[in-house]
Amino acid sequence: MLKIAVIGAGRIGKIHAANIATHPQATLVAVADPFINSANALADLYGAEAVSDPLELINDADVDAVIIATPTDTHVDLMLAAARQGKKVLCEKPVDLDLKRAADACRQLEEINAPVMVAFNRRFDPSASELQQAIASGDIGDLHQVVITSRDPDFAPMDYLRHSGGIFSDMVIHDFDMARWLLGEEPVEVYASASRLLKPELAEFNDYDTVMVQMTTASGRQCHINCSRRAVYGYDQRLEAFGSAGMLLNNNQRANSVRRYTAAATEVQAPLEAFFLERYEQAYRLEMDAFIQAALGKCAIPVTPFDGLMALKLAECAARSAASGRPVSVD
Amino acid sequence: MLKIAVIGAGRIGKIHAANIATHPQATLVAVADPFINSANALADLYGAEAVSDPLELINDADVDAVIIATPTDTHVDLMLAAARQGKKVLCEKPVDLDLKRAADACRQLEEINAPVMVAFNRRFDPSASELQQAIASGDIGDLHQVVITSRDPDFAPMDYLRHSGGIFSDMVIHDFDMARWLLGEEPVEVYASASRLLKPELAEFNDYDTVMVQMTTASGRQCHINCSRRAVYGYDQRLEAFGSAGMLLNNNQRANSVRRYTAAATEVQAPLEAFFLERYEQAYRLEMDAFIQAALGKCAIPVTPFDGLMALKLAECAARSAASGRPVSVD
Amino acid sequence: MLKIAVIGAGRIGKIHAANIATHPQATLVAVADPFINSANALADLYGAEAVSDPLELINDADVDAVIIATPTDTHVDLMLAAARQGKKVLCEKPVDLDLKRAADACRQLEEINAPVMVAFNRRFDPSASELQQAIASGDIGDLHQVVITSRDPDFAPMDYLRHSGGIFSDMVIHDFDMARWLLGEEPVEVYASASRLLKPELAEFNDYDTVMVQMTTASGRQCHINCSRRAVYGYDQRLEAFGSAGMLLNNNQRANSVRRYTAAATEVQAPLEAFFLERYEQAYRLEMDAFIQAALGKCAIPVTPFDGLMALKLAECAARSAASGRPVSVD
Amino acid sequence: MLKIAVIGAGRIGKIHAANIATHPQATLVAVADPFINSANALADLYGAEAVSDPLELINDADVDAVIIATPTDTHVDLMLAAARQGKKVLCEKPVDLDLKRAADACRQLEEINAPVMVAFNRRFDPSASELQQAIASGDIGDLHQVVITSRDPDFAPMDYLRHSGGIFSDMVIHDFDMARWLLGEEPVEVYASASRLLKPELAEFNDYDTVMVQMTTASGRQCHINCSRRAVYGYDQRLEAFGSAGMLLNNNQRANSVRRYTAAATEVQAPLEAFFLERYEQAYRLEMDAFIQAALGKCAIPVTPFDGLMALKLAECAARSAASGRPVSVD
Repeated sequence: MLKIAVIGAGRIGKIHAANIATHPQATLVAVADPFINSANALADLYGAEAVSDPLELINDADVDAVIIATPTDTHVDLMLAAARQGKKVLCEKPVDLDLKRAADACRQLEEINAPVMVAFNRRFDPSASELQQAIASGDIGDLHQVVITSRDPDFAPMDYLRHSGGIFSDMVIHDFDMARWLLGEEPVEVYASASRLLKPELAEFNDYDTVMVQMTTASGRQCHINCSRRAVYGYDQRLEAFGSAGMLLNNNQRANSVRRYTAAATEVQAPLEAFFLERYEQAYRLEMDAFIQAALGKCAIPVTPFDGLMALKLAECAARSAASGRPVSVD
Repeated sequence: MLKIAVIGAGRIGKIHAANIATHPQATLVAVADPFINSANALADLYGAEAVSDPLELINDADVDAVIIATPTDTHVDLMLAAARQGKKVLCEKPVDLDLKRAADACRQLEEINAPVMVAFNRRFDPSASELQQAIASGDIGDLHQVVITSRDPDFAPMDYLRHSGGIFSDMVIHDFDMARWLLGEEPVEVYASASRLLKPELAEFNDYDTVMVQMTTASGRQCHINCSRRAVYGYDQRLEAFGSAGMLLNNNQRANSVRRYTAAATEVQAPLEAFFLERYEQAYRLEMDAFIQAALGKCAIPVTPFDGLMALKLAECAARSAASGRPVSVD
Repeated sequence: MLKIAVIGAGRIGKIHAANIATHPQATLVAVADPFINSANALADLYGAEAVSDPLELINDADVDAVIIATPTDTHVDLMLAAARQGKKVLCEKPVDLDLKRAADACRQLEEINAPVMVAFNRRFDPSASELQQAIASGDIGDLHQVVITSRDPDFAPMDYLRHSGGIFSDMVIHDFDMARWLLGEEPVEVYASASRLLKPELAEFNDYDTVMVQMTTASGRQCHINCSRRAVYGYDQRLEAFGSAGMLLNNNQRANSVRRYTAAATEVQAPLEAFFLERYEQAYRLEMDAFIQAALGKCAIPVTPFDGLMALKLAECAARSAASGRPVSVD
Repeated sequence: MLKIAVIGAGRIGKIHAANIATHPQATLVAVADPFINSANALADLYGAEAVSDPLELINDADVDAVIIATPTDTHVDLMLAAARQGKKVLCEKPVDLDLKRAADACRQLEEINAPVMVAFNRRFDPSASELQQAIASGDIGDLHQVVITSRDPDFAPMDYLRHSGGIFSDMVIHDFDMARWLLGEEPVEVYASASRLLKPELAEFNDYDTVMVQMTTASGRQCHINCSRRAVYGYDQRLEAFGSAGMLLNNNQRANSVRRYTAAATEVQAPLEAFFLERYEQAYRLEMDAFIQAALGKCAIPVTPFDGLMALKLAECAARSAASGRPVSVD
């Protein structure tokens, strides 16, 4: 049994804790959160210990693995501290909002060959992974184009947005990771258009709500991403891969399969699922399983800090492109 | 060029006339209708002759083929008269409302080996014919079950219904023909349930608005038909064939392919197509082509008076079953 | 916390045990199975006690509720024994294969007003329950027709089938319950056709593999059910409700949402989900929650022994109809 | 009756001729083609006159309207000649491959206020026009993003491609027109990526087979177009419009509605329709009707030479962007 501690008892920490609790090869041994009440509440659910200081758990010889689900600006320090104590680490994205700091961390983790996994949960969505495997195994021949639709049901609160690092690093970063993973090749050029069509007040901190990104790889593969902070019909997450021998589509999923037919309209379905916790519930579970298998030495780490760094770099290129109006080369 | 006369300038006569006019191997030479104004109006559109007496056309040596699109009770006499004059004949369904009279007519037509085709237009719908061919060529292995959904958008006027012969002979007859065609084997047992859930006043002439039929063949194949005189969401026409090696579904078709997504609902499409003239427009065109090819001796007659008779017989069995509450054997 | 014991450590017992284990208001305290190794294996997973004799648990004052997941012929005795001990009971379907015995049991349970729930899990499938609620709340006006498609991916082993009570009591019974629930009115007439198109050797014990059922209610509502023991494309479970103001469709669900487009075909999806454990996973979870809420007195029992009895009665009528070739009135 | 002459008896000329022939308010009076045999063959089908010199028809006082379906480099001269003779003109796209020449022609046509319509047939596709009208009438609130998928089933012959003006002017030009029409606002910035992933030999004449385009309007609306010269699964034509109050999708259409379910796969449909003649058959018919109504003075000309010019300008900007790797401002 892998003994796991969760650092950060917020929304994502709770999901990870629940998935650990029901995993047959792992136990949740402890929860850390500076708000000790939050730590206690989560720990109590699963009979785990609660502490306020994460370092207590990181230094605890009885903890095998650590989940970092804290605010972004603490990721690098906690990741490095845990890695240096020989813990297996699963760290939430992004590695850091500062590209240089993230790159430094990656380098240090590589030097000590640390078993750190970055939590790009969408890679574990069964439909996304089937699609990626189908591309990788040549089902559609040579890959030519990837089209990603990624629209949130609604804005996070302004206070969150103000410190989110901007739409590219906060939201589109998932799509940059998906793009890299599906393309099977690094983008070398990024062009982004960004507008404030929903909330002009985002101009205050230079953020956007509606963006399109176009990227190319060295071999000439093309990728398009479109995002919006608000799709009134729900959380819109689609993938398309087009190649010389065919196309793969991953359409949206549904909470139920009932369709209504009336005098006014037909094929009517309910709006799309609420948000990422519901849509990617299964992905979070499979992500935790992948982490546990890697931590138990049964497979390689499937998403590395380098993946985290590269998604961040693409986000940063996109932000620069949107600001300058010019395509940006990924060095 | 096949010289064709149309008898009956009503709704169906007009469709046939238009399809003849645009067919490269046929010419519309004349239209007959006791309402000479109707005959004139239709004939003028295509530069054809108009007469009031159908026998004039039937006896005209210059007419190669005759389309009978008149009221049902005239079908038998016109069909026989035309056949005896050596005309190729396309006659609208049903052959007659009286089963015995229809059987007599069929026998006489057989005796003179008359080239008569009965207008079960749905067999020529491209989706229906692809489905039938797929069954016949073994794509789903041995056929086990056929499910037919057949719901009209709304009632015909009460005056029409009063003389229609009842829902089984007037409406379900199309589905009985489809069932025979898809099953590839004659039904031997018919059980029907019939209700008046929409218009209790149909009781006046012993008719129904909502029916279900279950039939079996000698080898144990099963068929279900469900019908309603009013589907508020439009003309609902679906086919399903289930066999040992798979299933074929023919879903409803759409006038356009636009889907709407709003905060209230997703995948919203417009109601289904208006009615049979729109839904089976292509089928009418292909039916006329099949008739013309058969009349020109290029293929066998695809739907015979015997087919017309058998569909009528099943309708009559279903009516008796609904009245008696017992299954009825098809002798 | 509701203390629950599971009797029967087979396939269904395991599902119930797992759903109890993760439910926040219940604890799995014990497992009983005459094969003590099976009981041990299941009990160990959740830190519960294992016994071989179910009566030990039924008589244990520390057990609040009992799940009966044993062979059918033990249901009645265990249900009555547990009810007499004041336990809350969730019993797998069918109540019994013998209609009279089941009716006796129902009467006795009613006399002592026993809190017994029968496990028709499909009622808890989110799509089925949304569809039922939409009908009940008048979304499609007056209900006229219900169409149920219910095809298994493949046969159970012959040894199981031989003692299953026949396709109507073993398999279609779920659809009879669904029909009653959706119709909102008892069927008064049942007509069934049954064939052996896949396995002629079922004749040995007078069973069938391919059936169609047609039922009517007193007010004239109609219901069609079609079943097959083997759909090569997977577990085919569809519902359709048609009414004066519209239609509700519940199509099949998918394990993932990837569609393939190649030169040979488009919209290609994987075969349907494996079988009921996968398809109704969520339904089993919600069923257990419903039982626990009812056991805790928070709601009425949603599926009663009377429901179990009525589904059995319809199955028995259908079997008689198939044997006699005549419709059977439900007394 | 509008007397119409068709200039050019090739593939598109034939379609126009057929649609004129069946239109109740128009007659095909003549066909011109330097290959007099082609002209004769087409004219004979509809009882029209055949000539080799288009000017003969343009100068014929008995001709009301002229359809120009000739090679691109003759469009400008024929259009101007016909307009100066007071003819109503329907001219195939593009106006010309040379932007300056096209702009000159437009200016001259404006000066004489000539009734010239440019044949962007896709605007008349019923699904496209329903989608455009839904946007224009505010059904999805403020428009934010347009996504256009436009993939041909296969390459035209190399000889055609060599003189086509390149993928942007030859193929994507339809999508540029669609983008302008749906956006309801002119693009001000165009960025294009272009690759040779299928036919490296296109480098010979500096052409591409796989392109993506991203455009923005002054108000910040965004548009993405993706194109390929070869989609092995058929002619892939999809539209998506996303706005503050919802989304509209126009998926691909189908020649028939049969779906297959086997042990290998489910929902299997045939590949998409062959190519534009089949996919846009109805659009061509409605386009001709729109032209005839405009020629008869019953409505304004729905697609002007200015529209033709603007689509060409966007194509030219895209080609420059693909060549330079930089976004290009539309002056």
